[in-house]
Amino acid sequence: MQQIYLDNSSTTRVCPEAADAVLKAMTETFGNPSSLHALGFAAQQALTTARAQVAAALSAKPEEITFTSGGTESNNLAVFGAAEARRKRGSRIVTTAMEHPSVLLPMQELEKQGFEVVYLKPDQTGNISTQQLFEAVNQDTILVSMMAVNNEVGSILPIDDARAAIDRAKAPALLHVDAVQAFGKLNLRPGRRGVDLMTVSSHKIHGPKGAGALFVRKGVHIAARTFGGGQERNLRPGTEAMPALCGFGAACAALPDTEAELQAIARLNRCLREKLAALPEVMVNSGDDALPYVLNLSAGRVKAQTMLNFLSTRGIYVSSGSACAKGARSHVLTALGLPHERIDTALRVSFCRYNTEEDCAAFAQVLQEGLRTLQKAD
Amino acid sequence: MQQIYLDNSSTTRVCPEAADAVLKAMTETFGNPSSLHALGFAAQQALTTARAQVAAALSAKPEEITFTSGGTESNNLAVFGAAEARRKRGSRIVTTAMEHPSVLLPMQELEKQGFEVVYLKPDQTGNISTQQLFEAVNQDTILVSMMAVNNEVGSILPIDDARAAIDRAKAPALLHVDAVQAFGKLNLRPGRRGVDLMTVSSHKIHGPKGAGALFVRKGVHIAARTFGGGQERNLRPGTEAMPALCGFGAACAALPDTEAELQAIARLNRCLREKLAALPEVMVNSGDDALPYVLNLSAGRVKAQTMLNFLSTRGIYVSSGSACAKGARSHVLTALGLPHERIDTALRVSFCRYNTEEDCAAFAQVLQEGLRTLQKAD
Repeated sequence: MQQIYLDNSSTTRVCPEAADAVLKAMTETFGNPSSLHALGFAAQQALTTARAQVAAALSAKPEEITFTSGGTESNNLAVFGAAEARRKRGSRIVTTAMEHPSVLLPMQELEKQGFEVVYLKPDQTGNISTQQLFEAVNQDTILVSMMAVNNEVGSILPIDDARAAIDRAKAPALLHVDAVQAFGKLNLRPGRRGVDLMTVSSHKIHGPKGAGALFVRKGVHIAARTFGGGQERNLRPGTEAMPALCGFGAACAALPDTEAELQAIARLNRCLREKLAALPEVMVNSGDDALPYVLNLSAGRVKAQTMLNFLSTRGIYVSSGSACAKGARSHVLTALGLPHERIDTALRVSFCRYNTEEDCAAFAQVLQEGLRTLQKAD
Repeated sequence: MQQIYLDNSSTTRVCPEAADAVLKAMTETFGNPSSLHALGFAAQQALTTARAQVAAALSAKPEEITFTSGGTESNNLAVFGAAEARRKRGSRIVTTAMEHPSVLLPMQELEKQGFEVVYLKPDQTGNISTQQLFEAVNQDTILVSMMAVNNEVGSILPIDDARAAIDRAKAPALLHVDAVQAFGKLNLRPGRRGVDLMTVSSHKIHGPKGAGALFVRKGVHIAARTFGGGQERNLRPGTEAMPALCGFGAACAALPDTEAELQAIARLNRCLREKLAALPEVMVNSGDDALPYVLNLSAGRVKAQTMLNFLSTRGIYVSSGSACAKGARSHVLTALGLPHERIDTALRVSFCRYNTEEDCAAFAQVLQEGLRTLQKAD
């Protein structure tokens, strides 16, 4: 059977370069980087290489990269760590209503602790305006946390405006950007854009699951959440997850040129939109200005899970909402203000560099079959 | 050059079974376990298998296993999570002065929050007495956290006495056991012995780094430290570190019979002790009743790091203190009350199932050469 994987915003297939690096870290450089003998030094060297590879993909300095177990841990560390470090300087936090749960739930915890959290509401295609940011950020604001790209609809959020809003308000705020869905897909350069903290994850860019990083801009201090043997400059101790981290580094090094790849994915996206335009029952939920890696659509009257199953039995894998929302109604599409019937039928197609126009054609065709078959069965 | 790895308490070489499982999770079952399509279900299945394998090694139920990124995270989660969950029932915590930093440093944080922490002092071979536990645990005690086996000298701590002390005092205490150094080496069976929380790690038993678990006994509630997409029953969310977790499971399944292996390692330990007995300048710091996987010794007047280098250049890898204490004087040997000169010359030999009597002979011989060469050079 064909296997067409169009769920790359959930997770990606590990690329050969990353798989090789993982294997090497398990069998050759298997020492503990903290060990003071030749095998320890070799492991330390491998870790240094991985850190440099991740740093390079962010145009950052290696010492600005703190390795974690993934995006969720990085987001928790950023949000709690920044709030803790700045709690004496203010009590207001600005974020959006469509962040990932690993930002939204820590925000709820901070509200219990007495912080005031402002949740900016996106428009119908998932955009946040400059004006919203300028109105929300004030002198009492200690943290602005905003994703770079939304995981369900692909909208690109105005990071530079968030920086400008902080500067204009002369706020004591750190700027955190959850870049899990943007990393490797847009030129992020957090250092040059005044981003203080940035979350990235390995398994969305063809690296292994279980590795991520938090970019912490030089000179920025946040509080640790974990305490132990001093690794990662005491910000995130514990024996380093060498196989996954080396794989993460290799996946970064194997990233194609961002700009060229963006063009290629934009062509795929256009190709799919053209095919979908021929299906009158399909409505596209992603904006025209969304990152082309993600295309969210609502299809007829067929519940997303039903259509997902139909597609899956034919070897086509997409998502309903995000993989993290398992079963629950998407909080992102709800925040966009879409009607329930459109949310409940929403599918997310997400591309990677291994996808082709044939994949788009196959998806559109099977989707059409699904609409015909499943709506008739009603 | 020969490569004799005798630093298995720092980390271990990944076994072939685990490496295969890691590779499979990266290239075959690479889906996100939360995805609601065939690739997601396959990943979920692989995760279920891994959880069952880890549970079996602890004679536990799969639902009692919470996966984490490793020992440090498990220890932090256990200590903070238990203190938070029980803070209304008392303010006293009992631990020992020779725990791993990932227990000791969270304890210091809890002291800042107002908890009273009692640090039991071990005797000269690293033992804690029944009486100490019975005297320390009172009605106000909400947590007892004690390692099963000490990482630097191998002493076996009285877990059952800790349980008895809690029961006798009718304390509202949870019992946490850091079993990182004991797992796979002793029959732990935490459920039957009244242990509420137990930390285990993958990379000490020939699994990959970046995976660990916290056993949480059925019915026991602790507070989460991380918030996100709901994975691991909300106790430790984040996309599961599939490659490392599947490798961890496979490493558990590949563990040899505990009792037979303990006999084999005891023979190696006796072999090494006999050879060391012929070197008058060597003093063994581990007790006769220590777990035979670890043998701590002090050698002449040669600083541990100098001897470590000498051994390393000859392809023999051991440790000074633990790999985590990098450079600092061992807090464990200090807690044992050993004189400074003996601490500063202390080496830790730690065995695994791949070691042989020839390894012991080679180590003893090169150690003797080292003593001769390096002390003459003084």
